[in-house]
Order: sequence, then C-alpha cells, then structure tokens
Amino acid sequence: MSDFKYNRLDKNDCAVLLVDHQTGLTNLVQDFSPDDFKNNVLALADAAKYFKLPTILTTSFEDGPNGPLVPEIKELFPDAPYIARPGNINAWDNEDFVKAVKATGKKQLLIAGIVTEVCVAFPALSAREEGFEVFVCTDASGTFNQTTRNAAWSRMEQAGCQLMSWFGVACELHRDWRNDIVGLGTLFSNHLPSYRCLINSYEAGRKAASK
Amino acid sequence: MSDFKYNRLDKNDCAVLLVDHQTGLTNLVQDFSPDDFKNNVLALADAAKYFKLPTILTTSFEDGPNGPLVPEIKELFPDAPYIARPGNINAWDNEDFVKAVKATGKKQLLIAGIVTEVCVAFPALSAREEGFEVFVCTDASGTFNQTTRNAAWSRMEQAGCQLMSWFGVACELHRDWRNDIVGLGTLFSNHLPSYRCLINSYEAGRKAASK
Amino acid sequence: MSDFKYNRLDKNDCAVLLVDHQTGLTNLVQDFSPDDFKNNVLALADAAKYFKLPTILTTSFEDGPNGPLVPEIKELFPDAPYIARPGNINAWDNEDFVKAVKATGKKQLLIAGIVTEVCVAFPALSAREEGFEVFVCTDASGTFNQTTRNAAWSRMEQAGCQLMSWFGVACELHRDWRNDIVGLGTLFSNHLPSYRCLINSYEAGRKAASK
Amino acid sequence: MSDFKYNRLDKNDCAVLLVDHQTGLTNLVQDFSPDDFKNNVLALADAAKYFKLPTILTTSFEDGPNGPLVPEIKELFPDAPYIARPGNINAWDNEDFVKAVKATGKKQLLIAGIVTEVCVAFPALSAREEGFEVFVCTDASGTFNQTTRNAAWSRMEQAGCQLMSWFGVACELHRDWRNDIVGLGTLFSNHLPSYRCLINSYEAGRKAASK
Amino acid sequence: MSDFKYNRLDKNDCAVLLVDHQTGLTNLVQDFSPDDFKNNVLALADAAKYFKLPTILTTSFEDGPNGPLVPEIKELFPDAPYIARPGNINAWDNEDFVKAVKATGKKQLLIAGIVTEVCVAFPALSAREEGFEVFVCTDASGTFNQTTRNAAWSRMEQAGCQLMSWFGVACELHRDWRNDIVGLGTLFSNHLPSYRCLINSYEAGRKAASK
Amino acid sequence: MSDFKYNRLDKNDCAVLLVDHQTGLTNLVQDFSPDDFKNNVLALADAAKYFKLPTILTTSFEDGPNGPLVPEIKELFPDAPYIARPGNINAWDNEDFVKAVKATGKKQLLIAGIVTEVCVAFPALSAREEGFEVFVCTDASGTFNQTTRNAAWSRMEQAGCQLMSWFGVACELHRDWRNDIVGLGTLFSNHLPSYRCLINSYEAGRKAASK
Amino acid sequence: MSDFKYNRLDKNDCAVLLVDHQTGLTNLVQDFSPDDFKNNVLALADAAKYFKLPTILTTSFEDGPNGPLVPEIKELFPDAPYIARPGNINAWDNEDFVKAVKATGKKQLLIAGIVTEVCVAFPALSAREEGFEVFVCTDASGTFNQTTRNAAWSRMEQAGCQLMSWFGVACELHRDWRNDIVGLGTLFSNHLPSYRCLINSYEAGRKAASK
Amino acid sequence: MSDFKYNRLDKNDCAVLLVDHQTGLTNLVQDFSPDDFKNNVLALADAAKYFKLPTILTTSFEDGPNGPLVPEIKELFPDAPYIARPGNINAWDNEDFVKAVKATGKKQLLIAGIVTEVCVAFPALSAREEGFEVFVCTDASGTFNQTTRNAAWSRMEQAGCQLMSWFGVACELHRDWRNDIVGLGTLFSNHLPSYRCLINSYEAGRKAASK
Repeated sequence: MSDFKYNRLDKNDCAVLLVDHQTGLTNLVQDFSPDDFKNNVLALADAAKYFKLPTILTTSFEDGPNGPLVPEIKELFPDAPYIARPGNINAWDNEDFVKAVKATGKKQLLIAGIVTEVCVAFPALSAREEGFEVFVCTDASGTFNQTTRNAAWSRMEQAGCQLMSWFGVACELHRDWRNDIVGLGTLFSNHLPSYRCLINSYEAGRKAASK
Repeated sequence: MSDFKYNRLDKNDCAVLLVDHQTGLTNLVQDFSPDDFKNNVLALADAAKYFKLPTILTTSFEDGPNGPLVPEIKELFPDAPYIARPGNINAWDNEDFVKAVKATGKKQLLIAGIVTEVCVAFPALSAREEGFEVFVCTDASGTFNQTTRNAAWSRMEQAGCQLMSWFGVACELHRDWRNDIVGLGTLFSNHLPSYRCLINSYEAGRKAASK
Repeated sequence: MSDFKYNRLDKNDCAVLLVDHQTGLTNLVQDFSPDDFKNNVLALADAAKYFKLPTILTTSFEDGPNGPLVPEIKELFPDAPYIARPGNINAWDNEDFVKAVKATGKKQLLIAGIVTEVCVAFPALSAREEGFEVFVCTDASGTFNQTTRNAAWSRMEQAGCQLMSWFGVACELHRDWRNDIVGLGTLFSNHLPSYRCLINSYEAGRKAASK
Repeated sequence: MSDFKYNRLDKNDCAVLLVDHQTGLTNLVQDFSPDDFKNNVLALADAAKYFKLPTILTTSFEDGPNGPLVPEIKELFPDAPYIARPGNINAWDNEDFVKAVKATGKKQLLIAGIVTEVCVAFPALSAREEGFEVFVCTDASGTFNQTTRNAAWSRMEQAGCQLMSWFGVACELHRDWRNDIVGLGTLFSNHLPSYRCLINSYEAGRKAASK
Repeated sequence: MSDFKYNRLDKNDCAVLLVDHQTGLTNLVQDFSPDDFKNNVLALADAAKYFKLPTILTTSFEDGPNGPLVPEIKELFPDAPYIARPGNINAWDNEDFVKAVKATGKKQLLIAGIVTEVCVAFPALSAREEGFEVFVCTDASGTFNQTTRNAAWSRMEQAGCQLMSWFGVACELHRDWRNDIVGLGTLFSNHLPSYRCLINSYEAGRKAASK
Repeated sequence: MSDFKYNRLDKNDCAVLLVDHQTGLTNLVQDFSPDDFKNNVLALADAAKYFKLPTILTTSFEDGPNGPLVPEIKELFPDAPYIARPGNINAWDNEDFVKAVKATGKKQLLIAGIVTEVCVAFPALSAREEGFEVFVCTDASGTFNQTTRNAAWSRMEQAGCQLMSWFGVACELHRDWRNDIVGLGTLFSNHLPSYRCLINSYEAGRKAASK
Repeated sequence: MSDFKYNRLDKNDCAVLLVDHQTGLTNLVQDFSPDDFKNNVLALADAAKYFKLPTILTTSFEDGPNGPLVPEIKELFPDAPYIARPGNINAWDNEDFVKAVKATGKKQLLIAGIVTEVCVAFPALSAREEGFEVFVCTDASGTFNQTTRNAAWSRMEQAGCQLMSWFGVACELHRDWRNDIVGLGTLFSNHLPSYRCLINSYEAGRKAASK
Repeated sequence: MSDFKYNRLDKNDCAVLLVDHQTGLTNLVQDFSPDDFKNNVLALADAAKYFKLPTILTTSFEDGPNGPLVPEIKELFPDAPYIARPGNINAWDNEDFVKAVKATGKKQLLIAGIVTEVCVAFPALSAREEGFEVFVCTDASGTFNQTTRNAAWSRMEQAGCQLMSWFGVACELHRDWRNDIVGLGTLFSNHLPSYRCLINSYEAGRKAASK
C-alpha cells in the first residue's frame, strides 16, 4: 500500500537510555533555559517510570568534573542497570552498556542525554547501525547552543532516527486515555504548567457550577 | 523523465482533517502569537469551506479541560462528520474517524490540529502508512514551543508528508485566479491584512484616478 | 506624601488621536506581524468607541501612495473630526487638528499611529510641550523595525509620555468590571483570542456541569 | 554626600502583594515559558514565606474565566489576607485591599502579578503616589508578549518603581549568608536548577575526595 | 565511485526564472528586511545579466493590487521573454511560460520569486517533475514570515531542489576568478557592502604603502 | 504651561557630525545587517545634503587598519570640513573638530558614527556638557552587538541626548511635504525600498486607470 | 552652560571592583555565550592592568559551590586587595572591602561581576549612595537571562550609574592613541577578533605593497 | 541487519581541509559572534593537531582584499600542504589541492572554511561525488547570515555530508578518555570556557576537601 512504515513507540517494545545526565554536564547546557531543561528531563524520567519501560542509566567519569548523575534520576530508578563508563565516550562502545540494552529484548530505543551531539548522537547512530528503531527525546537532551543542536539533529535524521519531544513520547506510548486517565493526567499536570492550569480551571468551574 | 512526482493538492481529491482545535488546547499553543494562530486556523477553515472540501472534525475529551471545539469552526461546518473521540490520542486509532476519512473517497489528506507533534503527527504518519498523500497545514497547527515544532516537522518530513502554509494550500487548490477572482480575493482580504491593504490602496487609487 | 502623581487615564478627560493609519503606510510596518498589528489597531479603535472617547482622525496625503485611511476605522467613527492634512508631517503643525483636539476640552491625549517615530512621536512631543498628559498606545503604533521603535520610545519617555498597550488602556479606562461586565468582556473576547478561549472553556464547563 | 538614596529591601519593612496569579490568567502569559514562569512565581512565594514577609493575596473574578488562585500559592499562605475583588481592576481601588496593605505597617511593597501592565502596574503606580517604596518582581509577573511588558516596565520606571528579579529580591532581603546558610541554599536549590547542580557537584566532589 | 552526483550550476546550461517580483507583492515580504531583500533580488538579477544567462520574467495580474514588476528588473532585461500571466498561479501552468523555458534549451533552472511557498515552490516542483535540475535562490525569494519559509524550503528539499543564496550562485557559475576578476569583483562590491569595505581598505592600504 | 520643552530639529540650526564611518571600522559593525547599515548611513548623508546642513567629517587613523572614510560619503561632501584626527579617540578632544563645529554657529548637533559607544557617545556627551542640543542618529551608528548598543543608548539618554532614526530626522527637518514633495519623495524612494514600492504601485495604478 | 556634567572615566581617578567572578558562578551565566563572556571579563581585567588601575578582588564562599576566583584573574592581580567575604552578599556590607575601596582614594568606581542584579547592582547602588561616580562594565557582568539583566540595568540607571562596555571603558580611559599606540592596539588585538583581523589584513597589505 | 551504516570519524582515516580562513573573509562572517567563531576555528585546528590528522591549508587571493591566512592557523601547521589557489573558487577545481588530498590516502574528509555556502559546500560536494565520506565542521565555518547558512546546510545534507561541531568531532575521534585524559581535557579546557570552569571548581573542591 505504502512505502512508508510508521514505526510507532510501543510500550511493550521500548527501552529508555538516559546518557550522562550529570550535574556538571547539565550546567553546560544552553539550548534550553535551566527550568525548561530540568522539567523536560524529569518529565521523560517520570514517563519512563510510569510506562514501566526498562531504563538504563549510564554516566561518564562521575567522580570528576562531569559530576554525579542528577540525584532525582537516580532515585527514580534505584534498580536500573547503571553503567559508570570508565572512559568510552560513545556509550555503545561499552560492552556492559550494550549487553544491558540487548538484555531488555526491546527493538525500540528511546535516547536522551547530555550533550546532544555526542552522548545522544553517538549511541543513536551505533544503535541504528545494529538495526534498532531509534527515537531521540530532543527536549530532554541538551547542548552548548542551538547551532550545535541543529547539526546534531541533522546527523541523526540522516541516520533515520525519529525526533520526538517528551510529550509526544508519552502520548504515543499511552495510545488511549482510557487506559488510565488519572495516571496520564497526573504526569501532564506535574510537567506541563499550562495543562495543569487548564485542569485547575476546569475543576474550579465544575465546583462553582455544582454549588 | 524524472524520479520525482509532484503530488499536488487537487480540490477534487482532497479531504481536510481538523484535529482537536479546542479552546483549552488552543491556550497551550506558544509557537505562534494568539492573533496569528487564530487567523491561520480560521483561514484554513474558510479555505476548506470555499473549496467545498469534505472536512472532518474531531475532538478529544471536549467535556474536560481540553475544552470544546472552537465555536467558529463548529459554525462553519455544521454538517461535517464530527467525531468526539472517547479516548484515542491518535485520531487514526478511532474507527469512526478512519471510516469518515475513507468515506470521502479522497486520496489526499490535509491535516491541521493542536498539538502538532501529537494530534497532527500521529494521524499524519498513520495515514502515510496506509498510502494516503498527506499534507500538513503547518501554520494552522500549534504546539508548546518552536523546538517541539521543529522535531515534529522532522518526523513528518521523514514520513514523506508535505508541509504547507494555509496560503500555499489555497493557492495550490485554486490553480487559476480566473476560476473565481472575487472568491479568492475575499479569502485573502479576510485573512492577509497586508494583502487587504494592497487591495484597498489599489481601489482607492483607481477611484482617485477616475475622478 | 509623594513626589509622584499617578496621571491615570480617565474616560471623562481623554481624547484619542489616530494618526495616519492608512493602507499604504500599514504595509511599511514590520515591528509587528500583520495579524497582530491589525488586531491591536482595531482593538484600540473599538475601545475608543466603547468608552465614547472623543476621537480625532487624521491622514497624510491619502490620495497618494500612503493610501486611504483603513476603512474599518473610517466606519467606526463616521462623525469624528477628520483632518486630511495637506502636507504637515507633524499633525500638531496643522491648525485644524489642534483646534479639533482642543475642542474636546480634554487634558489627556491617547495617541497611536504609523509610523511611531514620526506620526506618533511628533504630535506627542508637541502636546507634551503644551501641557497635555500624553499616553502612547504602543501596540497600535507601528514602524519599520524594532530598533527604530526603541529609539522612538526613548524620545517619548524622555518627554514624559506614558507608554501603554491597548489592553492596559482599556483596563485603566474601565476601572471596575461592575460598570459593565458584558461590554468589556465582549471587547476582550473580540481582540484577545486567548481570553476568548478562557471564556468559551468556562461557559462549556458550566453547561456540562449543569447537565 | 549624594543625591541618591539606596532604598534597599528590608525584611522588617516589606510586604508582598500577589495580584491575580490565577489559573486562567496564567495561561495568557507568553513573555516567559510556562516552566520558567511557574518556577519564578513559586520562588517568589517561597521567598516571601521564608523571610516571613506579610503577604496579601488578591484575585479578580475567581469564579469566572480567570480561574481560581494557583493552588500552590493558596497553600503556602493559608492565613494571609485574601481579597477576592468584586470588580476593581486596580487592586488599589479596593478598600479592603488597601486596608490590608496599610495594616502591615510596612513602607516597602513588593508586587507581582498577572498581567504586568494592569494587575501589577496599576497598584504599583497607586502605591507610589501614596508614598510607598515600590519594588516590582519582574519575573514573577507575566503578560501577553514582550512588547507589552516593555511598555509596562517603562511606565513603572517613570514612577520610580524599582524592577527586580526574585533572585535579587531574595539576596537583598537576606543580606548575609551567615544569617542562615541552609535556608537560603535550600531556596536556591529548589528554584535555580543550575545552582542546585553546583551544589550537587560540590557535595559529590567532597565525598569523593574524603574517601 | 559514489551514489551522489554533484549537479553544479553551469553558466552554459542554466536559465533564470524571476517570478512575480512585483511592487505590491514585495511589500508582503517580511522574512527579510526590505534593504536586504531589495539587495538580494537585484544582486541575483545583476548576476544573471553578468553571466548572460537566459532570463524569463513573469508576473501575475500586474494591473491589479500585486503591482507592476519592480522597474529595476524590467530595465535590466529589456528583451527577455516576459509573460504576464492571465491567471495561472503556478507559472508552469502557463503554456507560454513553459515554452519560453524550454526554448532556452537549458536543463538547469534557477528560480526566485515572491512568495516563496507559491510563486517559487509551485514551478520548482513542476520543473522537477519534468526532469529539470532546479536551483532555488532562497534569498532573492521572500514571503510572509520565517515559519512559512521553512515549510516551503522543506517541500522543495523533498523534491530534490537545491537551495542556494545569490552569492553561492554567482560563485558556482563563475568557477574561477581568472575568468574575469574585475567583473566578479564589481558584482560583489555592488551587492556585498562588507566585501566592498574589504576592497576599499585594501586599495587604500596599497596606496598608502606605495607613497 | 509645561515643564517639557520640545527641542525639535531645525534645519536652520542644525549641524551634522559624521564620525569615523571608515571602511575597516564598518566591518566591525554587527548590530545591523551590512545592507541595512549601508543604507542607513547613506540615507542620513543624503538627508544632510538635501537639507543643506553643515556637515563635518572626521576620521581616526585612516591610513591604518581603520581604513579610509567610506568613499560615498567623501564624494557627497567634497567641501566639508574634514578632520583626520591624529589620535584623539573622542573627536571633541580635537580642537580643530570643535572649532569646526562651533564655526557652524548651530546649537543642534546631529551625530552618527562607528562605534556607537565610543565615536558617537563620547562627543555626544562632551557636546551636551557644553550646552548643545544633541540628537543621535541611532541607525546610522553601529557597533559590535546589541548589548553594547543598549548600554551606549542608556548612557546617552541619561545625558539628555535625543535618539532618532534617519527617517525621523528627515521628517522632523522637512516639517511639511509642501516644501518640496519631489525632493523628499526621492530621498525616501532611494532609501526606503518599501516606500519606493508604494510609489511604484501607485503610479502604475494611476496609469492603468487613466487608460 | 549646561545642566549636564560629563563624568568621564579618568585613569587617575578610577578603581576597578571585580566581584565574584568565580568558576561556579560563571557557569550560571546565560545572557552571554561562554566564549563572549570569558573574553569580556579578561578584556576588562587586561584593561585594568594596562591602565594600572587599582583593582580590588572579592569573592563569596569560594570554598563552596560558588567555586574559586577564575584563575586567570587571580594571576593578573597577584598583589591586589583580595577580600574573601565570609557571608555578606553585597560586597559593600563588608568593612574590609569598603576600606580597600576607600584606600584607593579614587572617586570613580568601575564595577563588574556575577550575577549582575546582585553582586554588581548591590555595591553599585551602595557606592552611589556614598557619592561615588559608578560605572558598570555591562559585558563583563553576567546573569541568568536577558530579562533579569534588563531589570538590573534599569535599577542601576535609576541610581545614576553609567553603563559601559569594556571597549568603551578602554577607549575612555586611553583618551588619545598617541599615548601608546602599540599598547592599546595589543589590547584590542587580543580581545576583539574582528579588529585583530583588520590589523592582520592591513599589515599583510603593507608587506605585499612594499615588495 | 540495518540499511544504515554509521560512518564514524576515524583518526586513522581522516584528513582535515581548512579552506580560506583568511583575515579579510573572517570579517564577513556574521552567523557567529567574532569570539565564538575565533574560538571554534582554533578549537578545530587544535583538535586536528592533537589527533595528528593530515591537514591541508588553502587560500584564495591572499594578497588581495581577502587577506592572509589567519596567522594562528599558519603557525599550528607550518609543514602542512598549503595551496594558495590562483583563482579557483571551488578548491576541488585546483589540481594541487586534490592531489594533496589524495596523497593523504584518507577516505574521510573533515572540511571547514569561509564562507560556508561556497568555500565549504563546493569542495564538500565535489568530494562526495568522488566517493569520499565528507564531514563538515559547521561551527568552524562561517558566512554572511543564518539564512544563507541554512541553505548551505540543506545542500550539503542532500549530498550526504555529515554536519558536526568541533566538539563532536573531537569526541568522535578520541573514542575513549583513557587514550589520553590530560590531552583531551586540555583541549576542552582551552576551548570550552564552561568546561574549564567545571574543571577548576572540581580541582578547588578536591584541594579544599583534602586539607
């Protein structure tokens, strides 16, 4: 029928890779405001948790200037595979990391990290070469400036990666509000201030009307 | 001769899908100014009406925080198929919606909605997979910010969707001013303030000269 | 008590001067999008009408390239003093204009026009020199680019003009919603798309709750 | 010695006025990203609480489209004077509000609200006229766009208001870290993601070094 | 050797199509400053003339609001085929235009016009379908805003058009400065103010040193 | 009547100072596009010539890296006082320059130059101190970036300089179109491409109507 | 003669205050790119050194997350007074700092620091109150974002501080190139890449011509 | 397994081409700030040197207005092949240049230069046609403005070039920090001010903790 196949995020076939969201590296990010970036990263992490996606954490030199993994992430995934890479810049060059990825048995990989053109793009391209479907969570990935980001996006597009925002990720995974209205609504309320306002206005209106 | 085929909007083979232009969701949009966005959405709707394109309306949870369909749209298409989805985030996951689309018998689908990376991109990709020619009306589709929009555009480009503005849509559908000068001129005058000024200056000049 | 006196817009002591909102000149404006600018100008005009403020219209060479007064404005104020200046660039250099201003007996002047640094700033400074309280409606005044606008604002600030948006103007004139809730609400609904959405969401919520 | 007197925020002589931070109005704000704005407003509220500044809340039509006060603010100040204005647009036109302000006995007023050119600027100018020292928390105040904001700032500057960010406010009130290192550090850690990263990197480094 | 063929502009095999550079339409353009746009269009025209490329002019309704062809262009190409289209929006739908194009016998078409998403994109896509190599002179083509432009570029990229600036065009056509140093230098001096400054500084330095 | 005096540009009492518009320095300017800046500088120069304002040229080290005066300016004012300063950074520190200024007998000085915060601001502040009315032609003055420009503007505002654009300058000097319609129209047509388009559209419309 | 006195930087009467240029705080700065900010800070420091201005260094909690003083600054001023403040946020609240300032015997203070609205603005306002002439080096002072910066600038302008860039500072201090052409040229060459290019082009041209 | 092959920069198979980084041309660049651009170019050059990549230098008319090669680059590569092209605009049209490229025996080419759409894009496309893997160092390549850059990127993407930043280049070449921690750290410290700050903060913390 069509030459295009819609590779759609499937919560049963997707693993999440959070690469180098460390406190030192976070302060290098300037293509998002700090508030926006913090919110996006935690929104993606909350979504991964909510959908029970197997999640793999990795860091680079966390005892040095790069700093430790952002504590909120560590707390959300206490039992996740955690690969503190001894030196490989591309996480995919680390055997333990790749083993952990393959152990999930998933064929879709959703990747985010710092910085976009290295910690995200390198494993994304390696994974594409091995045949994975790769999705990049663009707004939970940060870098030095927008020019650098644009070049990184270009390279990942050429490799057939799909670029998504955390909100798009959550919606594509959920498929149908009826699966759990409260759960998804809570996720949005916690990470989309304007949606939270919609909800609060709506609830207030309902109460007022029912008086 | 060429490996490229120009899939050109054809008013006899095109249906319009307006997805989730609801009052609550509209207030989430920040990649356009509110004046610009309102104008673009109504311009597309007026164009769809003017060209008598079969138009399908759909909403998501319109009794909740997302709010009702923007009233101006409802009034323009009183008899259009109207699918209030009970929970499917991707409109294409809703059987009634797809049935309504296929009932039009058109192979070109022109889609706009809120938010771009979900309500537009998901059905756009699904439709592409089923072999439709998909056109996205980019400026009648809004989302949280420009970074999110850029990622959504990238994904739809990869799927072979064609990105257009409402003005490009109207021009490609009309083909020739001689088909109806007044009709197209009125559409532009109502939705392109700078074109309206050109017309008014011109008319005034003509009157002045003919005195 | 204080060395500062709050010169507050007073609907009983305020006249509106609309200077050179002509169709040709409008197309020179690039510090606002055409949709935003059209909306702002008509919002100010509607507000002037709603508050029954004496309004004076003036144009410069309307039979030439500058084009006629924007028709919507002409229609809103069919009986307003209308001074087609024969050549004075600063409207305040035109005796008829100044006479019309003084005939209103108001000491507050609210000015908007095209272009900001000339058609607005010149009469604003002249009026300040004669002791009027001058308010500039900044978003109903347009010019070639933002740098030019910034310089014009600086000059008017130095002269003690107060810079306001049409929305601030309407709110300061109205003082209290209880004076007329429907009237002010309608003005906002017509010219603030996001406020209109709030109203529509609210009304829909009330209906839904009352079922 | 100098003709300039540094009116410096003094935690013993300062009251905070939070004007119309309502859920509907919040969704009109487009001069900040929603994440930034939410953070700024809550940071100011947390600072007010931390410094035990008398805080006055007021809303406009909270049973209508403007929506209820943002719940987080309500919870932070359960016992604060709360004036639901029956219609006055300028809070200072409401006797109860002014009484509440004067009852604090403070001569410094720190104001924030939505929208900047109305709900903030109007009471700011009124308070200036009555001889108060007025400080505007610019980043906890939002409006439709940056042009409108700039005009509002200009008017408040002319009236002698001091423009500050929530961070400047907190620092000027605290004066000396030694008054409470942990308290101020916590405030910053909760609302300045980049400062939180500095702290986390520092702590991690200290731990690593002490092994 | 490679799957990529560098279709390079060749002055012996290239025709230029200037579409609807009319005075009314020019004033709709807001994705360039008026100075930049005027310079870019005339630079392309001068380059076309300099390289003696067959050039075809076409306009749409030049007796109406769209206005006449920009006079400077008309003067540069007094003998060029000039197709005043009676109504076809896509110039390629006009037989005379296509005939004129084919009469040049060139297989490369370099297109610019107003507005980008219509007057440029439509004939560009039609020409691609017929097997021409299509080059778009992006900075001599203007439209309503940057969002519209971006969508237009996307569509033309998908069709295999090559996007170039007038400077890139001139350089690719010239190939080697030795073909005519003075000629190319003059073109740059007339249309690249910063390059003109380089030349003037250089000449002055040479004179000073030779004293 | 008022505490404000409108110091208005008066062609009989105004001298123009063009400071360091040299070819090398021009290439340091990045707060305007090169096309815009070239146009603005030449527009101011043409206006000075058109209004026969005494004009003084000065340069800094024109035999060195700063380069020679832009040739177009030199040609426009062959007989103007021309002070090649031997080293004074502030032109006002040069006796010959100040003598030339005072020899004009004018009390209004209109200054432009490169770079804004030095070559413009320094003499502007010196002249203010000596009691001149100082007008800065902001868009014919350039510098490294917008932040630097903003700081320079602030300093000159504090000193009571009036900030204007070349267009505002020309309009304030001309006062009344009837003084010379063709002359002013030609100036605008040469330096305001969008105004030139208005004129051309208007003329074309008149011709068409008169057929 | 004039009510304005030009308080001009005087190398014999000016001290420099570098406040909290610490490595941790530097990474909070987002209103400049890191390259620009580093260059600006070091340019100011080099200028202070070059003009032999008494310079005072101060830091806040340099053993904590704020990090140590940027090493390059420490190296430039090994013998400068160095006040590691034990907790005062406003450096002027620290007696040792004020003593060091007053010990210089200068009446002009040139201040830069991180962050602008606190570490710069607070001592700037305190110094103004004590009658000092205060100059702020705006581009060697950084903060979280441009909105915060703008508010900080407004407050300092109101207090009569003069806003300057490092380049303006250097030029105003030097007065006349003849005082030392090589010295000032070297400063510019090291910190203005575009000026360095002018110099290199010029030298090369001279060499080429002299062959 | 996959249709995608990750062509990854390999320090053993990569040559660097630095095209026309001349002092005159550098001053034409306006899509980066001068500080950023200087830093990016020297960072790439340092990286090339550090990884001992064969590097080829070429210039265009270096005795004319384009100016000499930036001296810092010349000094870094005293023994590199250096082709002063007698007139070829596309370096690949110069036999000596292509010979030098082929003499390296590498199949990966990393290209940067001024201006992007000509000096970079032309040889990039030529090299692609001959089957090389082409990598463009986007941030060490500059041009007139961002619109021109975007068009140049589009053309190179279509040709299958990979767009990278100098930081991505360095990371992809290095592969593993363990190859040389100090070397890579020094490169980053010299060219990434924010990373240098991380390192300095870290070292200071370690020292403090070890006391």
